Parts: sequence; C-alpha cells; structure tokens
Amino acid sequence: MLIEDFKLEKWINSREAITKIDLSATCPKALSLTELTKITGEDFSKMLDISLNYGQLHGTNRLKQAICNLYENANLDRITVTLGGIGANYLVLQTLVNKGDKVVCVCPSYQQMYTLPKTFGANVELFFLKDDWTLDIDQFKAVVGDDTKLICVTNPNNPTGMNFDLTSVVEVAKSVGAYLFVDEVYRGLNHSGYPYSKSAVDLYEKAIATGSMSKTYSLAGIRLGWIVANPNIIEQINSNREYNTISISALDDYVATIALENHEKIVERNLKIILENKKIILNFINSNSHFSWVEPNAGTIACINFDYDLTSEDFCASLFDKTGVLTIPASCFDMNQNFFRIGYAMDSQMLQEALNLISDWVRKTY
Amino acid sequence: MLIEDFKLEKWINSREAITKIDLSATCPKALSLTELTKITGEDFSKMLDISLNYGQLHGTNRLKQAICNLYENANLDRITVTLGGIGANYLVLQTLVNKGDKVVCVCPSYQQMYTLPKTFGANVELFFLKDDWTLDIDQFKAVVGDDTKLICVTNPNNPTGMNFDLTSVVEVAKSVGAYLFVDEVYRGLNHSGYPYSKSAVDLYEKAIATGSMSKTYSLAGIRLGWIVANPNIIEQINSNREYNTISISALDDYVATIALENHEKIVERNLKIILENKKIILNFINSNSHFSWVEPNAGTIACINFDYDLTSEDFCASLFDKTGVLTIPASCFDMNQNFFRIGYAMDSQMLQEALNLISDWVRKTY
Repeated sequence: MLIEDFKLEKWINSREAITKIDLSATCPKALSLTELTKITGEDFSKMLDISLNYGQLHGTNRLKQAICNLYENANLDRITVTLGGIGANYLVLQTLVNKGDKVVCVCPSYQQMYTLPKTFGANVELFFLKDDWTLDIDQFKAVVGDDTKLICVTNPNNPTGMNFDLTSVVEVAKSVGAYLFVDEVYRGLNHSGYPYSKSAVDLYEKAIATGSMSKTYSLAGIRLGWIVANPNIIEQINSNREYNTISISALDDYVATIALENHEKIVERNLKIILENKKIILNFINSNSHFSWVEPNAGTIACINFDYDLTSEDFCASLFDKTGVLTIPASCFDMNQNFFRIGYAMDSQMLQEALNLISDWVRKTY
Repeated sequence: MLIEDFKLEKWINSREAITKIDLSATCPKALSLTELTKITGEDFSKMLDISLNYGQLHGTNRLKQAICNLYENANLDRITVTLGGIGANYLVLQTLVNKGDKVVCVCPSYQQMYTLPKTFGANVELFFLKDDWTLDIDQFKAVVGDDTKLICVTNPNNPTGMNFDLTSVVEVAKSVGAYLFVDEVYRGLNHSGYPYSKSAVDLYEKAIATGSMSKTYSLAGIRLGWIVANPNIIEQINSNREYNTISISALDDYVATIALENHEKIVERNLKIILENKKIILNFINSNSHFSWVEPNAGTIACINFDYDLTSEDFCASLFDKTGVLTIPASCFDMNQNFFRIGYAMDSQMLQEALNLISDWVRKTY
C-alpha cells in the first residue's frame, strides 16, 4: 500500500542537498551532549556503561516520570514512548481509526494528521482556520457531528505557530463523545507568560496528546516521542506498538530523561533564541511592504504572506532557485493562499542572511 | 484498527517482571559501549559532540556503506535504515501488501510476518515446515501460484534456528514473479563454516532483506535495522517511511556504524558464546530422554521437543509457575506441536542453571 506523497517531505528532499540556507527546518539550534552537559550538569560518559539490550519496552520509569511532569494529571500508566513524534502520531492514528470512521482535522496541519486517517479508510473532513488563523467555533460545531469518531489538531499549530485555546474544541469533542487527538510537539514554547499551555489530556478524558524531543527540546537526533492518554487507550496503542516498535534506543531514553528533568532550562535557552529571532523577522516585515504575517505566539515557525501574483509553489521554487533559501509553500499544506512557512529558531546570523537574500531577490525581480 | 494480539509478546509481557531466568530472550549477551570499545578500539566519547539534529534521513552514508559490506551487490541506493528489524519488516509489508493480495508465509515464523499482511487485507497462506524443519519444496511449489504477490520467510528461521538454503525458494518465487521478503535478523551466525549465508537480495532482483543490530550484533538497545532491496522498491518504502520514521537516532547511527565496521569481531565473540552454550543444551538433552531437538545450525534460538502429555502452553506455563524459567510455547507460533523455544546465547552459567531447574522440575513432577 503506497501512502499519498508527503508533500512537505518531497519538497524538502528534492532540494535539501543543494540548500544554501534552510528556513524549512523547524527545530531550535540542535544541542550536542557537550552542550547539554553545560545546561544540565550531567556527565554523559555514564552512557558508556549502559547495557544495550531492549530495556524497558515502553520507556524506563524514570523517563516516563519525567514526561508525566509535563502534564497535570499524568502517571506512568498513561504514557508510552515512541520513535519520535512521528511514531507517536502514527500509532495513535493507526489504533483509533477504522475504515469508514468520520475524522475531522483542523487545518492547516501536519499532513500526517489527515493523510494517515485517509489511508486507514476514514472519511476525513478538513476544517480550515480563518486567514487570521483563528477557529470559527460555530462553523466547527456545524461540521463535527455525532458520527465524528476523532478530531485531530496540531497545537501549537503547524504551520502557523499559533497556540489555540483548546477549551472550545474540547467542548465540541465532548458534546459528541469524539476522541480528541492533539499533536503537541511544539508545546512548551509559548512566547509570553508560562511557556506551557494546558495539554489536551488535562482537559478531557478522551484526549490523546503526543510530544517529542525534537522541537521544544532541540534534540531531533534523539528519536524519542511519547503518547499521553487514558490507560485504556494506551493499552490498545501498546498492543499495536508491538508490531512496529518493541522499544526505543537505550541511549536516547537516557538522554531524553536528563533533558526532560531539566526542561525549564532548555526551554529558557530556546525561547531566548526564538524571541530574538522574531525581532529579526519583524524588522524584515516592517521594511518589506509586500510581506506580512499573523504574528505567531508559540513555537518556532511562522507563515509569511506575500502579495506578489504568484502561487506559493512558484514563489518558493523561484526563491530557492535564485537564492538557495529553502522555504515551504502553502501548497504543501493543501492551501492556495499566498504564504510560505519558515522555521526561525536557527542561528540568528543565518536567519538575517536568509531574509536579506529574500529582500534583495524580490527587490530585483518584482 | 486493532491488530491481532502478538502472541509471543503477550506471553512474555505478562510474565517478564517476575521471571527468574529468561530463556525467552533471543539476543546474545548485550554489549555496552565500554565493551564495544574493547572489541573495536573506538573511543565513544566522540559521540558527545554529535549535533543532535535529524541528520541524514535514511542513515548516514558511512552507516549505509557498512551495511552494504554485509551483502555482495548492495550499494547506497539499495539501503534504508529503520527503527530496528521490526520497523524494517513493518515498512516492507506495509509498502508491498495491498488488500486482496495473495501472500504465502513460510512457518513457523515471527508472527509479524503473517499477521501484518492479514491486517493489511491480504489473503495469507501459512506454509509450515516439516517436523525436521525442512521445507517440502514440491508442496511449496503447489501452494505458490501465479497469483502470489509475496513470499515471506525468516532465515535463519525463527523459532527453529535453522538456516535454509534459499536457492529453491528463490526459484519458486522467480517462477511466478513474486516478491521474496526474507527477515534475516539472525544472518551472520551460522554455526559452522563462514558465518554469513548468501542473502536473498544477492540471489534475486525482487528479493527484499531486512537486518538489525539486535541479534547478530548484540545491540538490541541500539534501535537500528535496515532494508536492502532494489532501488525502485527502496524508493517506494522511503515514501511510506516519511509517515512513521523521519530518521533514526543520531547516537545509534554512530554506534551501529562502528559495530558493523567491526562485524567480524562481534560475530566471533557471539559465536564463541553460542557454540559453548550449545554444548550445555546437548548435554541437557542427552541426559533427559523426554527432550529432543533438531539441532539448530544458525542463530541463537532453538526449539526443544518434549514427550509429556501436555500442550506446549500448559508445559511452559507450569514450568514458569514452578521454576520461574521463561520459555515460549509452540502455540505462540500458531503450532500444536509439543515444543518450546529457548534463546541460548545468554550467560552460560544462567543457561546451565535454567536447564537444571527444568530437569529437576520434570523429574519431580512427571
């Protein structure tokens, strides 16, 4: 069974090798263990003596406890550990979706969230946010029905970088008894106030949340994600998990444990980068009247609107061809609007350089 | 979608926490990085400076080259890297199997190999080996037809520890143009002669082989497996892979690279353990007339027949209850025969102790 092309991945893969500056990347500057030692004080040479057997299949208890601490009401029975956020999302969708189910996905979103339910035979309805990236709750209520099995959301949202208030979405899910699945891989990077929003699982018994080390914790090379849900759902997921996972890297389990036990410090480091870089983008937008954005309030990504008479794909393809700056067109999110997604939690100088290249290119060309 | 219970995993999971000696484990004594340094000379403190970003999505070229070297005709385009052998098998089956396909699985086998095709909607035929664990090639030819899309084999075989000569299976597959998928996670541990048999992919253009670090290389905690196939198949698999993997642990990629570049030394270490422990089992069988085996010729596992009037499940359950020794009944491999599977590449003293407990228990009880 061939799954539909993953548009974003295809877009990146065909260009990655010849990219000059990669604004498609969504992770804050990646950490090494040496840098993680500076942040946490941990001596990672301990890992040399870990016995490299399968270990605890669903993650060590110490790791699962560190994950629990990111939620209000989690405990070890409500957690399983997976191959990154993508493995977490895969298992949730594979387990919950049956042929013929009605699934509503709030879009734009990470393509996995709606293509996989389609692949598993669901009737999938894409419910799009408004142009200001807010959700029209009345229209949403009208779309979700008693026959809705599952509502899928990414929050903070990918690609918009907007953090929803989930309360009204939860109310709609509750009113029809639907499962609410929220990909929360950008959670913990709210730009103002306390960095963590309430997780869906702390609002609703039938909510499932996924998280990972990649975005909020700058450790995408540590392939470790997780699922939080009520124990009954976790048990079902773990039963399917035996067919594609067994266990997670023993080294990654250890590194993730230390990182999550020090999550405030990593989040502080990342928010510093993010907030500085947001200023750089604001400056770019303020000095280029053809560009605008709905300012993101969380995470590491943003959508930049342009007013040139070009499709998003043509815009991003030309930009790449002429400057080597890689961005993601709206078309990769199944949208016709004129925007492109950037990740902006990279090295500040590189970001500035990329934006300069964009400014120069549009000035010369249009 | 809930997949059928994974019988072996359920059997282990319900007992693992209270197991005294685990003969269900199939990996040679796990290595730590400190031990791997002794074998390879590598200074693993280098890993402290690896940037923990996604890295090369399908595995670093150096890792893929080290994998290539285990095959006669592999090259980088014929390899992709996965979450262990289980992730490799999952992706192969998900990609190749469509609803209604005819799939023939040579059994007994690892349950994933036939349950997943069933889950994906295939018509799956289980073709069982004879009691001496050889394959009746004429009967096999009669079962495989022009409508057979895929033949699945584990070789060296799980649970029997027998290495097939694949030549005749390849001929049958070729004669109908079927894909031949061989799970080769125990390859490299032939008990006599050169430790590696010819891989299916070096015999047939439409063959797909999977391998992993877990068994042959004693690194199950390094969650790294791989798929070898022709570039067209790998491209299709990689397209699906974007929906459940992205990339593999950067730390595991590095460790696996070093281990595979030194694979002869690790195989030598493991075969030493295996051959010594086989003598211990032979001694047990020779001094217990109720037990027998078809002596395995590869890998780390074996099936032990018993002649008591008990089902395999009752035998293994009683054995566990009375002695704490965990073995796997034939029923976990969908067979009614009177045998249980053991892994025997563990610490020799533990193995001896477990066999003593079994001897004492049957002498007292039957």
